[in-house]
Amino acid sequence: MQNNWEKLNQELFTSSKRVIILSHRSPDGDSVGSSFGLYHFLKKFNHHVQVITPDPVPPFIHWIPEFETAINYEKQKDESFDAIRAADIIFCLDFNTPSRMGNMEFAFDRRSKDAYVINIDHHQQPDNFAHFQISDTSASSTAQLIFDFIIKTKGKTALDAQIAQCLYAGILTDTGSFRFSSTSPHTHRVVADLLETGIDVNAIYQKIYDNYSQDRIKLLGFALKDKLKLYPEYHTAIIDLSEKELNSFQFQKGDTEGIVNFPLSISWVKMSVLLTQKDGIVKMSFRSKGNFSVNELARNHFNGGGHENASGGMSTLSMQETLKQLESILPDYKQKLDESKI
Amino acid sequence: MQNNWEKLNQELFTSSKRVIILSHRSPDGDSVGSSFGLYHFLKKFNHHVQVITPDPVPPFIHWIPEFETAINYEKQKDESFDAIRAADIIFCLDFNTPSRMGNMEFAFDRRSKDAYVINIDHHQQPDNFAHFQISDTSASSTAQLIFDFIIKTKGKTALDAQIAQCLYAGILTDTGSFRFSSTSPHTHRVVADLLETGIDVNAIYQKIYDNYSQDRIKLLGFALKDKLKLYPEYHTAIIDLSEKELNSFQFQKGDTEGIVNFPLSISWVKMSVLLTQKDGIVKMSFRSKGNFSVNELARNHFNGGGHENASGGMSTLSMQETLKQLESILPDYKQKLDESKI
Repeated sequence: MQNNWEKLNQELFTSSKRVIILSHRSPDGDSVGSSFGLYHFLKKFNHHVQVITPDPVPPFIHWIPEFETAINYEKQKDESFDAIRAADIIFCLDFNTPSRMGNMEFAFDRRSKDAYVINIDHHQQPDNFAHFQISDTSASSTAQLIFDFIIKTKGKTALDAQIAQCLYAGILTDTGSFRFSSTSPHTHRVVADLLETGIDVNAIYQKIYDNYSQDRIKLLGFALKDKLKLYPEYHTAIIDLSEKELNSFQFQKGDTEGIVNFPLSISWVKMSVLLTQKDGIVKMSFRSKGNFSVNELARNHFNGGGHENASGGMSTLSMQETLKQLESILPDYKQKLDESKI
Repeated sequence: MQNNWEKLNQELFTSSKRVIILSHRSPDGDSVGSSFGLYHFLKKFNHHVQVITPDPVPPFIHWIPEFETAINYEKQKDESFDAIRAADIIFCLDFNTPSRMGNMEFAFDRRSKDAYVINIDHHQQPDNFAHFQISDTSASSTAQLIFDFIIKTKGKTALDAQIAQCLYAGILTDTGSFRFSSTSPHTHRVVADLLETGIDVNAIYQKIYDNYSQDRIKLLGFALKDKLKLYPEYHTAIIDLSEKELNSFQFQKGDTEGIVNFPLSISWVKMSVLLTQKDGIVKMSFRSKGNFSVNELARNHFNGGGHENASGGMSTLSMQETLKQLESILPDYKQKLDESKI
């Protein structure tokens, strides 16, 4: 596909339009940050802009400026459907194929035939479903690509602190605080420009990361002290949290977020697995360091998949049986785990 | 003091010299990172360079290139003393007054009268003890100032991946992964230039942060689940770890590092205190969010001090009595804690 920038400029910057911004299921910091960074940018050009998410957004990112204007398809199906149907321009951000929108794909498929679709994303193997597509798999985040888009179309003077807060949040969360390999010199230069608008990075960091409940921190303590199982011969750590155990800490959605990463801080651990139980189903989170692929393991054995170093899976067996199954396949992966380089 | 750059250039870049680089007691990532960043830079100009620390360096930063060449005053007193005595040039990095070197100050005071002393630092209220001083309290880290020093004296071409790894480690650790307010647009631009030398940020992050022992992670779990005391009316969290408790987790120096920060992730906590016991002495670490000054509290009550949001102190009372004393003064600070803005 050859992007036609002239056509894009005409669509976006010659008259007021109805613009819809869509993101993927289970929205994260980058999808919400990039959506609202773009939202605040487009509002400057007198567009009517509406952000729609497929399902609810987790609380850690609700502080985003004007987040309260967003609607979610799961809760406001009619309103979302009508808005998408009436859109002049539809941005699809931070996903590479319409199916990543979950049930909202139905509404997207029934959009007006005149709607001009723009896709901006950084995930691998993008589908070709837009009239205009920016797909850069080397970018740290979609928020970084929105920054580049703003600079390319309207220049640095179009930036302001509202846009910058949103894009900073997207880059921060999608790079693991600038630690992942996707963090490039350009990423840091983008962030420098964002900081120049006067945003308070420490305040943003606290809003995103320092919003634990006291039960959540006690649950983390319980998981690490009483439930951490270590398998040095397989460079593996497993934490299993039953429904009953979670409930004893007044479990709220999101409370187990991040727990799977802690065992990776043990020097010899190359794979960490978190098992949590809800309504009898065991949800599995896999993380790895180095070049050991948890994607393969999750896909082959636990109806899951994802990225090389971060995947999900599930099991309908009991917690004990799931744990036993997981332990039983570790020997099959011993060689790969031994050989994986951190 | 007016810095004489001409004299500095003459001292540093006209002939081979004996250069000593000194850092503060209890060396951290920034003091070691800035010391070795400077070390690798100066080695390019055929100097004989020796890094000396006042006491041992914690393991998380031992991977720094050529770290094995460093000596520590506590263990190698004669060798350190002789090297400082014979120095042509002495760099004092990341501290603002010679007393921060602890017992090594003795050796510094007996340096040759001809030694040219250079101080590069970012701490508040610097003393005037050097012939040439760069003191910038707005800088994120001393490592950032070493970067500026390299650029100012020899330009960007003097950078290489060895220097960059060291300086990146210093900036990363002293900014809390770019989260503290001292992180400026310039900080990110410096990091962008460092990354351009091709360093692997993810590998550095893992070497620094993912080197826990399994006992250390269990100790963290124990601290958060069983020892965390919460005082909602004072926005305060306290963790006390006795010598016996620490020993039950095969305590090694450095194992309690960072534990004090965890309770700050609870949304309503504004002050977190960690009490640890060694040889009958209670060591106290204070952290705060927002504008509540733990410096004042530590100075007034616990023979300590430091920064507004991060201070230390100590008590010769028993753990129980120290805890009681700390609890007894919380009401005096209630108003300031209530009013502190995060």
